[in-house]
Amino acid sequence: MTAPAAEFAANFASDNVSGVCPEILEAIARANAGPAMPYGEDEITRRLEAQVAEIFEHEVAVFPLATGSAANSLALSALVPRYGAIYCHREAHVNVDECGAPEFFTGGAKLVPLEGLHAKIDAATVAAAVSGAGVVHHVQPAAVSITQASEQGTVYTPQEVAALAAVAREHRLVLHMDGARFANALARLSCTPAEASWKAGVDVLTLGATKNGALAAEAAIFFRPKQAADFGFLRKRGGHLFSKMRFVSAQLEAYLTGDLWLRNAMHANAQATRLAEGLAALPGVELTAPVEANEVFAALPRALVEGLQARGFVFYVWRDAGPKPLVRFVTAFDTRAADVAALLAEAARLAGVGAGADQR
Amino acid sequence: MTAPAAEFAANFASDNVSGVCPEILEAIARANAGPAMPYGEDEITRRLEAQVAEIFEHEVAVFPLATGSAANSLALSALVPRYGAIYCHREAHVNVDECGAPEFFTGGAKLVPLEGLHAKIDAATVAAAVSGAGVVHHVQPAAVSITQASEQGTVYTPQEVAALAAVAREHRLVLHMDGARFANALARLSCTPAEASWKAGVDVLTLGATKNGALAAEAAIFFRPKQAADFGFLRKRGGHLFSKMRFVSAQLEAYLTGDLWLRNAMHANAQATRLAEGLAALPGVELTAPVEANEVFAALPRALVEGLQARGFVFYVWRDAGPKPLVRFVTAFDTRAADVAALLAEAARLAGVGAGADQR
Amino acid sequence: MTAPAAEFAANFASDNVSGVCPEILEAIARANAGPAMPYGEDEITRRLEAQVAEIFEHEVAVFPLATGSAANSLALSALVPRYGAIYCHREAHVNVDECGAPEFFTGGAKLVPLEGLHAKIDAATVAAAVSGAGVVHHVQPAAVSITQASEQGTVYTPQEVAALAAVAREHRLVLHMDGARFANALARLSCTPAEASWKAGVDVLTLGATKNGALAAEAAIFFRPKQAADFGFLRKRGGHLFSKMRFVSAQLEAYLTGDLWLRNAMHANAQATRLAEGLAALPGVELTAPVEANEVFAALPRALVEGLQARGFVFYVWRDAGPKPLVRFVTAFDTRAADVAALLAEAARLAGVGAGADQR
Amino acid sequence: MTAPAAEFAANFASDNVSGVCPEILEAIARANAGPAMPYGEDEITRRLEAQVAEIFEHEVAVFPLATGSAANSLALSALVPRYGAIYCHREAHVNVDECGAPEFFTGGAKLVPLEGLHAKIDAATVAAAVSGAGVVHHVQPAAVSITQASEQGTVYTPQEVAALAAVAREHRLVLHMDGARFANALARLSCTPAEASWKAGVDVLTLGATKNGALAAEAAIFFRPKQAADFGFLRKRGGHLFSKMRFVSAQLEAYLTGDLWLRNAMHANAQATRLAEGLAALPGVELTAPVEANEVFAALPRALVEGLQARGFVFYVWRDAGPKPLVRFVTAFDTRAADVAALLAEAARLAGVGAGADQR
Repeated sequence: MTAPAAEFAANFASDNVSGVCPEILEAIARANAGPAMPYGEDEITRRLEAQVAEIFEHEVAVFPLATGSAANSLALSALVPRYGAIYCHREAHVNVDECGAPEFFTGGAKLVPLEGLHAKIDAATVAAAVSGAGVVHHVQPAAVSITQASEQGTVYTPQEVAALAAVAREHRLVLHMDGARFANALARLSCTPAEASWKAGVDVLTLGATKNGALAAEAAIFFRPKQAADFGFLRKRGGHLFSKMRFVSAQLEAYLTGDLWLRNAMHANAQATRLAEGLAALPGVELTAPVEANEVFAALPRALVEGLQARGFVFYVWRDAGPKPLVRFVTAFDTRAADVAALLAEAARLAGVGAGADQR
Repeated sequence: MTAPAAEFAANFASDNVSGVCPEILEAIARANAGPAMPYGEDEITRRLEAQVAEIFEHEVAVFPLATGSAANSLALSALVPRYGAIYCHREAHVNVDECGAPEFFTGGAKLVPLEGLHAKIDAATVAAAVSGAGVVHHVQPAAVSITQASEQGTVYTPQEVAALAAVAREHRLVLHMDGARFANALARLSCTPAEASWKAGVDVLTLGATKNGALAAEAAIFFRPKQAADFGFLRKRGGHLFSKMRFVSAQLEAYLTGDLWLRNAMHANAQATRLAEGLAALPGVELTAPVEANEVFAALPRALVEGLQARGFVFYVWRDAGPKPLVRFVTAFDTRAADVAALLAEAARLAGVGAGADQR
Repeated sequence: MTAPAAEFAANFASDNVSGVCPEILEAIARANAGPAMPYGEDEITRRLEAQVAEIFEHEVAVFPLATGSAANSLALSALVPRYGAIYCHREAHVNVDECGAPEFFTGGAKLVPLEGLHAKIDAATVAAAVSGAGVVHHVQPAAVSITQASEQGTVYTPQEVAALAAVAREHRLVLHMDGARFANALARLSCTPAEASWKAGVDVLTLGATKNGALAAEAAIFFRPKQAADFGFLRKRGGHLFSKMRFVSAQLEAYLTGDLWLRNAMHANAQATRLAEGLAALPGVELTAPVEANEVFAALPRALVEGLQARGFVFYVWRDAGPKPLVRFVTAFDTRAADVAALLAEAARLAGVGAGADQR
Repeated sequence: MTAPAAEFAANFASDNVSGVCPEILEAIARANAGPAMPYGEDEITRRLEAQVAEIFEHEVAVFPLATGSAANSLALSALVPRYGAIYCHREAHVNVDECGAPEFFTGGAKLVPLEGLHAKIDAATVAAAVSGAGVVHHVQPAAVSITQASEQGTVYTPQEVAALAAVAREHRLVLHMDGARFANALARLSCTPAEASWKAGVDVLTLGATKNGALAAEAAIFFRPKQAADFGFLRKRGGHLFSKMRFVSAQLEAYLTGDLWLRNAMHANAQATRLAEGLAALPGVELTAPVEANEVFAALPRALVEGLQARGFVFYVWRDAGPKPLVRFVTAFDTRAADVAALLAEAARLAGVGAGADQR
């Protein structure tokens, strides 16, 4: 007997379909006690900078923000001249998913798209791409931007980051890390936040919280505070300085308190791993990238894709070409193990194997 | 006997020192039930557009946003060419308090500062300023932007708006209303939202909620939806498209439900009026602008200013020149009558008059 | 007897209605000998920098350009942050006659319009206007821009410039001089190019040649070459790097050789002075600004304006309000004394006085 | 016996190392007769538009400009939204040789680099790349830009352009042709200017003259004049409106009169063809792209490259990797047949073959 669709259908479209985790919602409510000076002059925002410095074991300049596109674009705009070149993977969020925000905020800098396995760029590719320094006809090499975890759910090791940083230093480029899913990457790596960032050579990290349990909270973290001299002005003129900033800062504070960020990320990662293992065991299913964070990319037989959709499971068809569409599943801090199990059971049933098939 | 400072000190620095009103905080919590599609594809956002259309009695395109600077700048950038001129009061928030955000978002349009009594511009002044249409050497007349309520807490009547709109139409300019305190203005006027906006000729209204009880919520409301064709792209590339938009929309929905926006505004306005009346009765105090919304601008004897500050009352010294500094007090949805009374009592005591003086 | 209009009509509309003076046209032809490396790598461009350094008695970085708007906007864009404020006279060319070019090139900086007699700003006015430094809500004080000679044909003395420079230094602003008519100003002042520029505190001078005999040639001259580090890139991305730059540089070289620039300017100034004196002697004519360079601003009886126009004299009616339109006459390197005399004779005749009237 | 280097060395670095052809220099001198109204209000500029319309057999809006980067960037900025995507070859001048000018002028549009043989893109590649229309996360497909002749000296046939135009129309993209070497392409094709442009679907052509004999003259030619509504303002704020525009227009007028543009181009092309044939006959030399205009790209043995350089021949080493550097030779309207012959003779001598070798 098959349960009605509504009962086990679940949403794997993105980690931003999730709501807010309880600890963060409570922090917002708690921040609502009495008046507080606006625009970051409040106590919570002040505490946040100290907290980030402690967690990252480094002097930092921290700027609370509310969207990842804003965090990335503002960070780049503080570091890259208008005629600068930013080297990134062709699939990078900054290159393809922000409607040109980096170009807008930098005043016209150019994102130079590079190739690389599983949405990661490597040091050799960047080294080969850097050119034109000092020649007025060409945009000037200015930054390397990497996404951690990447757009295919893979994770840069500190060694890989350090190799990129070495190339960056050689050419006087800044190294920007888009950490929309930094916690998911960190949960995967056996290292400290410091090792995953400035110790590996990262100059500026845009640390995401929204995809991992916050309502709307990101932070631009500069490990060389002098590089942030302009940031306050750029944030304001970008319309990203919140008058009641305490409510953004409160989210970040709660996120970083008591390892909430890592616990949320570990949960999401674990669900993704389980989902990936289950799918990979099915005939005709092929994982197209290692599952190292909270995203699963897999080529599925078309019948399987359509069958899951018909049963109410929500996910993105990433590329629909050929007999096996490439599909993306994303798990989150609140993904229920039962939902993963339900999807796997249904997939097995559709594939005519395993427990799901037996029960028919 | 004088109570200790801490007991009656209160913060009149701005309406953004207040937190979130309970109805809106509850709406945020309520919106946190289960997954929802991101980027405005959720149910709450969908309902919001219908709600705004009903309240304003007109077809609208509504875009939830989180800061007033973003709302103003994006709205103007959707309507004004890069070489456009935007006529506004010299003291307008868009001209002096957004660190050049309108120039940034429009790609370089020019804000033409105009003079006008109590921070309001009038039709004749705008008519006299419009020039250069069709001449390539000059920026091209493109928009009129007014603030409702104004930067001095005064309110445009529908008739005044209509007169400005007539000039705007004659010169093919769009009429933008920065409604960061629109509810406060509306609470003052005996008219409908429609009469205060599109019926008076407003093309686009940026409706503020943050200063009047929301956490971070504003809406760009286009009364000619065709003019909003670009807006979605501009919002995204500005980093202002929220993935978990339901939480912004939920604030706006609660704000507009059951007249919450007007109740909050009426309370704030009433406190400002009482504060103004009390101050005006003191010797040496002069109100410098009519108190028509939730702001009081007054020239106070320096000793009075310093005495109030010493007692812990917080407010801005707007212009510190001459023997009587110009001071701004702002009230909000949560300003306590007791705080206003305490300030007035202390002021009277300092001025050596009234009940306060008597009690000594 | 009155000669037919065509015989004595002349064009006083602007100094850019004139063509190219022979020395400069010859220099262009001379530069056309054989191949030369492009983009400023030619011999003439190299010589030019040395020549400018010698004439101005200071180390300089020189960038040949072809329009004044480009020179001004590029210079400002190299010195002012995107969120900067540029203090200038309300009538300044950069503020009203460049269709927003400075805003475009700077990425959105704000021109703050100031008042001042005869289109000149003074130190006190600038000092009073500078505000907001360090406050993120406000554009940041960044530059003072003055026009030499001014938009009303008046000239800043080195002392006036120095006073402005003192204010600029106090607030860490750069001082930009729009020298579209620098030669005309210099011809008026008894001082050296150095005294009129860097010795008085000018950081960057945009030196015009086009209005004073060149085909299309201006130079951005930085007296602190380090401030020009970005300029080459900004010029290129602005489309202002000429491949056959030798032909622009050749114009500038000829312009500065053998005092050609001063001779041309002295001639133009002398014609303006004579024109002004002649007009001022007529009944009902009022000079509205001192004639210190090659422009005459005068309020003329309407009948006189119309009469001159009817006789074929070309000039701009600057402001047409009231019984006496404000009129601008501009003289140039090639203005013929006979044309000035003809205009004055005709004006006298129309005014019913003097030689012109006598002859009737 | 070998003649001294100076006697036969020649410059093949670029067509912009050449000066001005006599007809155009004379036209400049001729334009210098008497005053003329500025900013394009002169007679020559007026005549030019009619002349272009006649030559291209179509209604046009024509804007004289002075650099190719300005022409390309301004044209694109008039047609592409700030959040637009412009599809072009990876090697396109607009993508790699303008220091980000298109990004600057468009306000941040993205150039999407495509691959294609010999620096040409084809319709299928463009069709495959167009994506994201209507989705706010992505830049919006807006334009296709092709270079005629291409960056490798190849030429698009009208059929190839028409195929690209069909894709463009299907996706509502405008088709821009960077015609910096349009005359060289036209000289190659057996077709009319109309057939090579609007009849094949080109919306806007930036027609170069500078590389083919002008001092500094380009034209942005809109075949749908309505699309040029903004252009005048964009040109002015870009600093590209020349006050003495008659001298730019005069160059273009002379260029297009009596087939001068085609004669110049045919000469340059013929020299390139001869040079290519001569080089290709040498052992170890390989032409890397068909020679269809005035550029020769060839892989040469390193000894040959160094030998030619030692003899004073000037050309660019385009890519210096491996045993055979890729070299570019450019011919121009004034390239002397004797110089080509001298280079070939020297090359033959160095290669140890032919007449050159015999003489040793």
